[in-house]
Amino acid sequence: MNAKACTGEERRTELRRVMVIGAGLIGTSIALALRAHEVDVTLTDPDPASLRLACDLGAGRPLEEAAQVAPADLAVIAAPPAIIPRVLRDAQDRGLAQVYTDVASVKVSVLREAQRLGCDMATFVPGHPMGGREKHGPGAARADLFLGRSWALCPTGKADPVSVAVVTELARLCGADPLVLDGAAHDQAVALVSHAPHVASSAVAARLLGGDQVALTLAGQGVRDVTRVAGGDPGMWEEILTHNAAPVARVLAEMAADLAATAEALRTHTAHSNEATVSLEPVRDLLERGRSGHGRIPGKHGTVRRPEYAVIPVVIPDEPGALGRLFAAAATAGVNIEDVRIEHSPGLPLGVAELYVLPEAVNSLAEALTDDGWSVHPGA
Amino acid sequence: MNAKACTGEERRTELRRVMVIGAGLIGTSIALALRAHEVDVTLTDPDPASLRLACDLGAGRPLEEAAQVAPADLAVIAAPPAIIPRVLRDAQDRGLAQVYTDVASVKVSVLREAQRLGCDMATFVPGHPMGGREKHGPGAARADLFLGRSWALCPTGKADPVSVAVVTELARLCGADPLVLDGAAHDQAVALVSHAPHVASSAVAARLLGGDQVALTLAGQGVRDVTRVAGGDPGMWEEILTHNAAPVARVLAEMAADLAATAEALRTHTAHSNEATVSLEPVRDLLERGRSGHGRIPGKHGTVRRPEYAVIPVVIPDEPGALGRLFAAAATAGVNIEDVRIEHSPGLPLGVAELYVLPEAVNSLAEALTDDGWSVHPGA
Repeated sequence: MNAKACTGEERRTELRRVMVIGAGLIGTSIALALRAHEVDVTLTDPDPASLRLACDLGAGRPLEEAAQVAPADLAVIAAPPAIIPRVLRDAQDRGLAQVYTDVASVKVSVLREAQRLGCDMATFVPGHPMGGREKHGPGAARADLFLGRSWALCPTGKADPVSVAVVTELARLCGADPLVLDGAAHDQAVALVSHAPHVASSAVAARLLGGDQVALTLAGQGVRDVTRVAGGDPGMWEEILTHNAAPVARVLAEMAADLAATAEALRTHTAHSNEATVSLEPVRDLLERGRSGHGRIPGKHGTVRRPEYAVIPVVIPDEPGALGRLFAAAATAGVNIEDVRIEHSPGLPLGVAELYVLPEAVNSLAEALTDDGWSVHPGA
Repeated sequence: MNAKACTGEERRTELRRVMVIGAGLIGTSIALALRAHEVDVTLTDPDPASLRLACDLGAGRPLEEAAQVAPADLAVIAAPPAIIPRVLRDAQDRGLAQVYTDVASVKVSVLREAQRLGCDMATFVPGHPMGGREKHGPGAARADLFLGRSWALCPTGKADPVSVAVVTELARLCGADPLVLDGAAHDQAVALVSHAPHVASSAVAARLLGGDQVALTLAGQGVRDVTRVAGGDPGMWEEILTHNAAPVARVLAEMAADLAATAEALRTHTAHSNEATVSLEPVRDLLERGRSGHGRIPGKHGTVRRPEYAVIPVVIPDEPGALGRLFAAAATAGVNIEDVRIEHSPGLPLGVAELYVLPEAVNSLAEALTDDGWSVHPGA
């Protein structure tokens, strides 16, 4: 809303009318966020059921019903990467909007194909909001899907600064942190922090096909976390990986080399287990590098580090109202519960609620809950 | 408590006196669980501070102070795998207990070394409770650490059935599901579901050392989950891996081959991206196998599948008492919240609480909360 239009009053960063092309999880979530800011949103989707559901959820009006008197301020193309350039060219030919963006998780291949198709790169600012869910479709959409997340913007050198300002405003209205970077840098970054980790997760999960049911019974939280993303849609991920093939291939080859070296060191150790000369250096080295790399990941929400909360485990009976009584007791003590995790024990009448609070609140909350009759375990 | 002693009344499955050797996370958690069942627990640890803390937490009495009138019913050796056989032999020589178990995550190497040292295998039943935390030491211990988890028991053919019954009773008192299996089968299983996944997590996390800070800013929940276990202690994991070297090496070699094949397919695809003849079959195949393998993991707590809960997102103001009011409203509606996840938005006065409830409770809870003035998003 600060940047002034420099090419005429029809271009401005204040978003009044936005068109969302593709009413899936991402498109509908963006639409819901915009609607919360009173933006006029029109929606379109090749699937009539998705479009109807998105509109019923309050994400906007179908494009067909809207009296399209003038181009929208912005069109958001929330479609798979393979069809984005064609959709963009078509939308630009029809003059549907003044500025265009997309939300694909790959950028170089989209930019290359858009240029090959002769799209207007002055009004196209590719984007990638770093939010998502394992669920798909408009029914899974949430207005807050991008709250506090990074939103990558990858304009080419041909992009109009006003176009960049418009898409920056879109990210801000969705509560995200806009981050401008080069398309190639973006693709290398997501290969590292998203695409290659997904393949590694699949490689771990694929091994579980070789275990019997007893082996799987021994699965704990670790392997569940490592393999969670492997439950994602193979078709969608195949498309993502093939559109970011070279950067992903490089990272995967490095991972494969690390795993092969570790396997070889362990195998050699077994074969010569009576000889102290066998070096386990590759094993220790990988574990050390892994811990260092893990430590580089910023706090949960993009660059914003959450304060270090203290955890108070409280035993709770597994019955209606127990949590309500617990939180009411915390509220009476004037303490804000920042987060809570519940561990249930099937077949047993107890669970444990882990209350996350600011460190300075631990003592007073623990005392108040204990006085209220709760089984509290601070420091445990 | 059912099995009758067959070698004299001094052997029984009712545990009255247990000795825990090693007051770390696992040993202290076992001791706390036993104390909750009125079992007399004595503790020992080479580190006086750990021992004192465990005792102060109510996990038992120090061994030195206990008037040791007779051997304990059971000694639990909660020590690293490398020293277990020596500690076992020493404890058996001193006649500290009638039955012995351990809690190490590897079994074959411990059994082999125990036999080599001449330990009495009739009274030794190796065990492995499938619970843990990322934190270490007695301060992190919890009486419910093993609630609903599997507890592997790996007796050799020489084990006395009464010894097995005693250790089975230990697992039951800790709320776990005892599971008897062969030591080699155990080691192969944990290589698959724990040890190799840990190394894969390290290999993903190690790559993050190669990314700049902007790349890491794009990290989402996926890579956080995949790399969570890579934050574990390298020294502890090196010991675990080297004690289960051959099974882990086999799984890692298979993972490395999958990742290398995927990298090669993607690299070839890039090099020949204009030729439709390049096969992406290895990529799709790994993604499909990964999803199938992920689907084989049983529900969160061992073999017990949790019911499929429905999720109701509710917008909550970030202020003291908000969660208390929310749960009080749920309790008034007579609905039990089975689980809850909270998404905070730093810098914004709102968050979203995802309430997990039985599917049949969704409508009544959503209505009650809406009537109570909450911003409820069932189906979102």
